[in-house]
Amino acid sequence: MATATVNNGVNVQALLDAREALKSAPREATKFTWRATCKWQSGTHSKSNVHGFFGLGEEQKHKTETSFDADHPEIFASEDKGITPIEYVLVGLASCLTAGVAAVAQNRGVQLRSVESKLEGKMDIRGILGMDSDVRNGYDDIKVTFKIDSDAPKKDIEAIVAQSQKRSAVYDIITNPVNVSVEVV
Amino acid sequence: MATATVNNGVNVQALLDAREALKSAPREATKFTWRATCKWQSGTHSKSNVHGFFGLGEEQKHKTETSFDADHPEIFASEDKGITPIEYVLVGLASCLTAGVAAVAQNRGVQLRSVESKLEGKMDIRGILGMDSDVRNGYDDIKVTFKIDSDAPKKDIEAIVAQSQKRSAVYDIITNPVNVSVEVV
Repeated sequence: MATATVNNGVNVQALLDAREALKSAPREATKFTWRATCKWQSGTHSKSNVHGFFGLGEEQKHKTETSFDADHPEIFASEDKGITPIEYVLVGLASCLTAGVAAVAQNRGVQLRSVESKLEGKMDIRGILGMDSDVRNGYDDIKVTFKIDSDAPKKDIEAIVAQSQKRSAVYDIITNPVNVSVEVV
Repeated sequence: MATATVNNGVNVQALLDAREALKSAPREATKFTWRATCKWQSGTHSKSNVHGFFGLGEEQKHKTETSFDADHPEIFASEDKGITPIEYVLVGLASCLTAGVAAVAQNRGVQLRSVESKLEGKMDIRGILGMDSDVRNGYDDIKVTFKIDSDAPKKDIEAIVAQSQKRSAVYDIITNPVNVSVEVV
Protein backbone atom coordinates (compact mmCIF):
# COMPACT_ATOMS: atom_id res chain seq x y z
CA MET A 1 0.00 0.00 0.00
CA ALA A 2 1.41 3.35 -1.06
CA THR A 3 1.72 6.05 1.55
CA ALA A 4 0.62 9.45 0.29
CA THR A 5 3.23 12.12 0.86
CA VAL A 6 2.00 15.00 2.96
CA ASN A 7 3.18 18.31 1.58
CA ASN A 8 1.89 21.58 2.96
CA GLY A 9 5.00 23.38 1.72
CA VAL A 10 6.57 23.68 5.16
CA ASN A 11 10.09 22.34 5.56
CA VAL A 12 9.57 20.91 9.02
CA GLN A 13 12.78 18.90 8.88
CA ALA A 14 14.80 22.09 8.42
CA LEU A 15 13.07 23.59 11.45
CA LEU A 16 13.72 20.50 13.57
CA ASP A 17 17.37 20.52 12.42
CA ALA A 18 17.63 24.23 13.26
CA ARG A 19 16.22 23.56 16.71
CA GLU A 20 18.88 20.89 17.26
CA ALA A 21 21.66 23.16 15.97
CA LEU A 22 20.49 26.06 18.14
CA LYS A 23 20.71 23.93 21.28
CA SER A 24 24.49 24.05 21.08
CA ALA A 25 24.78 27.48 19.41
CA PRO A 26 25.76 30.58 21.41
CA ARG A 27 22.79 31.91 23.36
CA GLU A 28 22.87 35.08 21.19
CA ALA A 29 21.88 33.07 18.09
CA THR A 30 18.26 32.73 19.21
CA LYS A 31 17.86 36.42 20.09
CA PHE A 32 16.08 38.24 17.28
CA THR A 33 15.27 41.90 16.82
CA TRP A 34 12.50 42.74 14.36
CA ARG A 35 12.25 46.31 13.10
CA ALA A 36 10.03 48.81 11.37
CA THR A 37 10.46 52.47 10.58
CA CYS A 38 7.57 54.87 10.15
CA LYS A 39 7.21 58.29 8.51
CA TRP A 40 4.25 60.55 9.08
CA GLN A 41 2.75 61.75 5.79
CA SER A 42 -0.08 64.13 6.75
CA GLY A 43 -3.07 63.95 9.06
CA THR A 44 -3.43 60.39 10.33
CA HIS A 45 -1.66 58.91 7.29
CA SER A 46 1.74 57.25 7.76
CA LYS A 47 4.03 54.95 5.82
CA SER A 48 5.90 52.18 7.60
CA ASN A 49 8.79 50.27 6.07
CA VAL A 50 10.10 46.83 6.92
CA HIS A 51 13.32 45.40 5.55
CA GLY A 52 16.17 44.39 7.88
CA PHE A 53 16.19 42.44 11.10
CA PHE A 54 18.77 40.86 13.38
CA GLY A 55 18.94 37.14 14.03
CA LEU A 56 21.24 34.10 14.23
CA GLY A 57 23.89 36.50 15.48
CA GLU A 58 23.96 38.80 12.46
CA GLU A 59 22.10 41.34 10.35
CA GLN A 60 19.51 39.81 8.03
CA LYS A 61 17.25 41.24 5.33
CA HIS A 62 13.96 40.36 3.73
CA LYS A 63 14.30 39.85 -0.03
CA THR A 64 12.53 43.14 -0.58
CA GLU A 65 11.73 46.24 1.45
CA THR A 66 7.98 46.58 1.92
CA SER A 67 6.02 49.74 2.63
CA PHE A 68 2.66 49.90 4.41
CA ASP A 69 0.20 52.79 4.41
CA ALA A 70 -2.01 53.31 7.43
CA ASP A 71 -4.69 55.91 7.96
CA HIS A 72 -8.09 56.43 9.56
CA PRO A 73 -11.29 55.99 7.53
CA GLU A 74 -13.42 58.80 6.12
CA ILE A 75 -16.02 58.46 8.89
CA PHE A 76 -13.25 59.67 11.26
CA ALA A 77 -12.73 62.73 9.03
CA SER A 78 -9.56 61.19 7.56
CA GLU A 79 -8.65 60.29 4.00
CA ASP A 80 -8.54 56.48 4.24
CA LYS A 81 -5.20 56.19 2.50
CA GLY A 82 -4.57 52.84 4.14
CA ILE A 83 -6.09 50.40 6.60
CA THR A 84 -6.20 51.39 10.26
CA PRO A 85 -3.40 50.51 12.68
CA ILE A 86 -5.61 48.08 14.59
CA GLU A 87 -6.50 46.22 11.41
CA TYR A 88 -2.75 45.57 11.00
CA VAL A 89 -2.95 43.74 14.33
CA LEU A 90 -5.62 41.43 12.85
CA VAL A 91 -3.43 40.81 9.79
CA GLY A 92 -0.56 39.85 12.11
CA LEU A 93 -2.72 37.50 14.16
CA ALA A 94 -4.36 35.86 11.12
CA SER A 95 -1.07 35.22 9.36
CA CYS A 96 0.70 33.96 12.49
CA LEU A 97 -2.00 31.40 13.32
CA THR A 98 -2.25 30.35 9.66
CA ALA A 99 1.49 29.73 9.31
CA GLY A 100 1.32 27.76 12.55
CA VAL A 101 -1.55 25.61 11.29
CA ALA A 102 0.43 24.71 8.15
CA ALA A 103 3.60 23.94 10.10
CA VAL A 104 1.90 21.87 12.80
CA ALA A 105 -0.16 19.95 10.21
CA GLN A 106 3.02 19.15 8.29
CA ASN A 107 4.72 17.95 11.48
CA ARG A 108 1.72 15.71 12.26
CA GLY A 109 1.46 14.34 8.73
CA VAL A 110 -1.87 16.00 7.96
CA GLN A 111 -2.42 17.21 4.40
CA LEU A 112 -4.29 20.51 4.17
CA ARG A 113 -6.23 21.54 1.08
CA SER A 114 -7.28 24.99 2.24
CA VAL A 115 -7.14 27.12 5.37
CA GLU A 116 -9.32 30.19 5.58
CA SER A 117 -10.01 32.40 8.54
CA LYS A 118 -12.18 35.34 9.43
CA LEU A 119 -11.18 37.70 12.23
CA GLU A 120 -13.38 40.15 14.07
CA GLY A 121 -12.09 42.60 16.64
CA LYS A 122 -14.62 44.47 18.76
CA MET A 123 -13.83 47.93 20.03
CA ASP A 124 -15.82 50.73 21.63
CA ILE A 125 -14.52 54.02 20.21
CA ARG A 126 -15.53 55.89 23.37
CA GLY A 127 -12.07 54.78 24.56
CA ILE A 128 -9.91 56.42 21.89
CA LEU A 129 -12.18 59.47 21.81
CA GLY A 130 -11.61 59.97 25.54
CA MET A 131 -15.36 59.88 26.27
CA ASP A 132 -15.20 57.38 29.10
CA SER A 133 -12.03 56.46 30.97
CA ASP A 134 -13.52 53.07 31.89
CA VAL A 135 -13.58 52.08 28.22
CA ARG A 136 -10.30 50.69 26.93
CA ASN A 137 -8.68 52.05 23.76
CA GLY A 138 -8.01 48.71 22.12
CA TYR A 139 -10.00 45.61 21.33
CA ASP A 140 -12.36 44.24 23.96
CA ASP A 141 -12.34 40.93 22.23
CA ILE A 142 -11.05 39.25 19.07
CA LYS A 143 -12.76 36.26 17.49
CA VAL A 144 -10.97 34.04 14.99
CA THR A 145 -12.94 31.50 12.96
CA PHE A 146 -11.08 28.90 10.91
CA LYS A 147 -12.50 26.91 8.04
CA ILE A 148 -10.09 24.14 7.10
CA ASP A 149 -10.43 21.65 4.27
CA SER A 150 -8.61 18.39 4.98
CA ASP A 151 -9.37 14.69 5.19
CA ALA A 152 -8.27 14.62 8.84
CA PRO A 153 -10.97 14.22 11.53
CA LYS A 154 -12.27 17.47 13.03
CA LYS A 155 -10.69 16.69 16.43
CA ASP A 156 -7.25 16.43 14.77
CA ILE A 157 -7.79 19.75 12.99
CA GLU A 158 -8.90 21.37 16.26
CA ALA A 159 -5.79 20.03 17.96
CA ILE A 160 -3.60 21.47 15.18
CA VAL A 161 -5.24 24.89 15.59
CA ALA A 162 -4.80 24.70 19.36
CA GLN A 163 -1.10 23.87 18.98
CA SER A 164 -0.71 26.78 16.55
CA GLN A 165 -2.17 29.12 19.21
CA LYS A 166 0.18 27.67 21.80
CA ARG A 167 3.24 28.52 19.69
CA SER A 168 2.02 31.75 18.08
CA ALA A 169 4.12 34.86 18.67
CA VAL A 170 1.31 37.27 17.79
CA TYR A 171 -1.32 35.39 19.82
CA ASP A 172 1.05 35.72 22.80
CA ILE A 173 1.63 39.44 22.16
CA ILE A 174 -2.11 40.16 22.02
CA THR A 175 -3.29 37.95 24.87
CA ASN A 176 -0.45 38.80 27.28
CA PRO A 177 1.18 42.11 28.25
CA VAL A 178 4.33 43.21 26.41
CA ASN A 179 6.55 45.97 27.72
CA VAL A 180 6.69 48.91 25.29
CA SER A 181 8.99 51.87 25.91
CA VAL A 182 8.60 55.06 23.90
CA GLU A 183 11.19 57.80 23.78
CA VAL A 184 11.73 61.03 21.89
CA VAL A 185 15.25 61.89 20.72
CA MET B 1 1.00 90.24 14.58
CA ALA B 2 -0.25 87.45 12.37
CA THR B 3 -0.97 84.11 13.99
CA ALA B 4 0.40 81.25 11.95
CA THR B 5 -2.25 78.62 11.28
CA VAL B 6 -1.34 75.20 12.56
CA ASN B 7 -2.17 72.53 10.03
CA ASN B 8 -1.07 68.94 10.52
CA GLY B 9 -3.83 67.72 8.24
CA VAL B 10 -5.97 66.40 11.08
CA ASN B 11 -9.55 67.64 11.25
CA VAL B 12 -9.66 67.88 15.04
CA GLN B 13 -12.86 69.93 15.00
CA ALA B 14 -14.69 67.12 13.20
CA LEU B 15 -13.45 64.66 15.84
CA LEU B 16 -14.56 66.94 18.70
CA ASP B 17 -17.95 67.39 16.99
CA ALA B 18 -18.23 63.62 16.53
CA ARG B 19 -17.48 63.11 20.22
CA GLU B 20 -20.28 65.53 21.12
CA ALA B 21 -22.71 63.88 18.71
CA LEU B 22 -21.85 60.41 20.00
CA LYS B 23 -22.70 61.43 23.57
CA SER B 24 -26.39 61.49 22.68
CA ALA B 25 -26.25 58.77 20.00
CA PRO B 26 -27.48 55.23 20.70
CA ARG B 27 -24.83 53.27 22.60
CA GLU B 28 -24.48 50.96 19.56
CA ALA B 29 -23.00 53.82 17.49
CA THR B 30 -19.64 53.67 19.28
CA LYS B 31 -19.31 49.90 18.98
CA PHE B 32 -17.03 49.02 16.10
CA THR B 33 -16.05 45.67 14.63
CA TRP B 34 -12.86 45.58 12.55
CA ARG B 35 -12.30 42.60 10.28
CA ALA B 36 -9.75 40.71 8.26
CA THR B 37 -9.93 37.51 6.29
CA CYS B 38 -6.93 35.29 5.63
CA LYS B 39 -6.19 32.57 3.08
CA TRP B 40 -3.33 30.16 3.40
CA GLN B 41 -1.24 30.02 0.20
CA SER B 42 1.46 27.39 0.83
CA GLY B 43 4.00 26.74 3.55
CA THR B 44 4.01 29.70 5.94
CA HIS B 45 2.76 32.11 3.26
CA SER B 46 -0.72 33.64 3.65
CA LYS B 47 -2.69 36.50 2.18
CA SER B 48 -4.92 38.61 4.41
CA ASN B 49 -7.56 40.97 3.09
CA VAL B 50 -9.10 44.02 4.74
CA HIS B 51 -12.07 45.89 3.35
CA GLY B 52 -15.30 46.20 5.35
CA PHE B 53 -15.94 47.02 8.99
CA PHE B 54 -18.92 47.85 11.17
CA GLY B 55 -19.30 51.19 12.92
CA LEU B 56 -21.69 54.04 13.67
CA GLY B 57 -24.46 51.45 13.61
CA GLU B 58 -23.93 50.26 10.05
CA GLU B 59 -21.67 48.47 7.59
CA GLN B 60 -18.75 50.58 6.38
CA LYS B 61 -16.03 50.02 3.80
CA HIS B 62 -12.53 51.27 3.16
CA LYS B 63 -12.23 52.97 -0.25
CA THR B 64 -10.29 49.97 -1.49
CA GLU B 65 -9.78 46.37 -0.45
CA THR B 66 -6.15 45.78 0.53
CA SER B 67 -4.26 42.49 0.52
CA PHE B 68 -1.25 41.68 2.70
CA ASP B 69 1.26 38.88 2.21
CA ALA B 70 2.91 37.37 5.24
CA ASP B 71 5.55 34.66 5.37
CA HIS B 72 8.62 33.57 7.28
CA PRO B 73 12.12 34.52 6.11
CA GLU B 74 14.53 32.26 4.25
CA ILE B 75 16.59 31.63 7.40
CA PHE B 76 13.51 29.81 8.74
CA ALA B 77 13.47 27.62 5.60
CA SER B 78 10.56 29.63 4.16
CA GLU B 79 10.24 31.65 0.96
CA ASP B 80 10.00 35.19 2.40
CA LYS B 81 6.99 36.13 0.27
CA GLY B 82 6.00 38.81 2.77
CA ILE B 83 7.01 40.28 6.10
CA THR B 84 6.51 38.17 9.22
CA PRO B 85 3.30 38.31 11.27
CA ILE B 86 5.07 39.94 14.21
CA GLU B 87 6.45 42.69 11.98
CA TYR B 88 2.81 43.55 11.16
CA VAL B 89 2.37 44.21 14.88
CA LEU B 90 5.19 46.78 14.70
CA VAL B 91 3.55 48.43 11.67
CA GLY B 92 0.30 48.69 13.63
CA LEU B 93 2.01 50.19 16.67
CA ALA B 94 4.10 52.66 14.65
CA SER B 95 1.15 53.93 12.65
CA CYS B 96 -1.17 54.16 15.65
CA LEU B 97 1.27 56.25 17.71
CA THR B 98 2.13 58.41 14.68
CA ALA B 99 -1.51 59.20 13.89
CA GLY B 100 -1.97 60.04 17.56
CA VAL B 101 1.02 62.39 17.59
CA ALA B 102 -0.41 64.31 14.60
CA ALA B 103 -3.89 64.51 16.11
CA VAL B 104 -2.75 65.55 19.59
CA ALA B 105 -0.32 68.14 18.15
CA GLN B 106 -3.16 69.58 16.06
CA ASN B 107 -5.42 69.78 19.10
CA ARG B 108 -2.67 71.55 21.08
CA GLY B 109 -1.81 73.99 18.28
CA VAL B 110 1.63 72.53 17.61
CA GLN B 111 2.83 72.52 14.00
CA LEU B 112 4.79 69.42 13.04
CA ARG B 113 7.27 69.36 10.18
CA SER B 114 8.21 65.70 10.35
CA VAL B 115 7.58 62.69 12.56
CA GLU B 116 9.78 59.65 12.14
CA SER B 117 10.02 56.60 14.32
CA LYS B 118 12.06 53.47 14.58
CA LEU B 119 10.67 50.36 16.27
CA GLU B 120 12.59 47.40 17.59
CA GLY B 121 10.94 44.29 18.98
CA LYS B 122 13.12 41.79 20.79
CA MET B 123 12.23 38.12 20.75
CA ASP B 124 13.98 34.90 21.68
CA ILE B 125 13.05 32.26 19.10
CA ARG B 126 13.54 29.46 21.61
CA GLY B 127 9.91 30.26 22.48
CA ILE B 128 8.29 29.60 19.10
CA LEU B 129 10.62 26.66 18.45
CA GLY B 130 9.43 25.03 21.66
CA MET B 131 13.01 24.76 23.00
CA ASP B 132 12.29 26.24 26.43
CA SER B 133 8.82 26.59 27.91
CA ASP B 134 10.03 29.47 30.10
CA VAL B 135 10.69 31.60 27.00
CA ARG B 136 7.64 33.41 25.68
CA ASN B 137 6.63 33.18 22.01
CA GLY B 138 6.15 36.89 21.45
CA TYR B 139 8.17 40.01 22.03
CA ASP B 140 9.98 40.39 25.33
CA ASP B 141 10.17 44.09 24.76
CA ILE B 142 9.41 46.73 22.13
CA LYS B 143 11.28 50.01 21.91
CA VAL B 144 9.87 52.95 19.97
CA THR B 145 12.11 55.95 19.23
CA PHE B 146 10.54 59.12 17.83
CA LYS B 147 12.40 61.89 16.03
CA ILE B 148 10.10 64.88 15.62
CA ASP B 149 10.87 68.12 13.84
CA SER B 150 8.85 71.04 15.23
CA ASP B 151 9.48 74.48 16.74
CA ALA B 152 7.75 73.40 19.97
CA PRO B 153 9.91 72.83 23.07
CA LYS B 154 11.02 69.24 23.65
CA LYS B 155 8.87 68.95 26.80
CA ASP B 156 5.76 69.81 24.75
CA ILE B 157 6.70 67.22 22.13
CA GLU B 158 7.26 64.62 24.84
CA ALA B 159 3.86 65.43 26.32
CA ILE B 160 2.24 65.01 22.89
CA VAL B 161 3.88 61.60 22.45
CA ALA B 162 2.78 60.58 25.97
CA GLN B 163 -0.81 61.60 25.23
CA SER B 164 -0.70 59.64 21.97
CA GLN B 165 0.35 56.54 23.96
CA LYS B 166 -2.45 57.16 26.44
CA ARG B 167 -5.08 57.10 23.65
CA SER B 168 -3.51 54.52 21.34
CA ALA B 169 -5.59 51.46 20.54
CA VAL B 170 -2.60 49.37 19.44
CA TYR B 171 -0.42 50.42 22.38
CA ASP B 172 -3.25 49.23 24.64
CA ILE B 173 -3.61 45.93 22.76
CA ILE B 174 0.11 45.18 23.05
CA THR B 175 0.72 46.33 26.62
CA ASN B 176 -2.47 44.83 28.10
CA PRO B 177 -4.14 41.45 27.65
CA VAL B 178 -6.90 41.08 25.06
CA ASN B 179 -9.23 38.11 25.01
CA VAL B 180 -8.85 36.09 21.79
CA SER B 181 -11.13 33.16 21.02
CA VAL B 182 -10.33 30.76 18.21
CA GLU B 183 -12.78 28.27 16.76
CA VAL B 184 -12.90 25.83 13.89
CA VAL B 185 -16.14 25.50 11.92
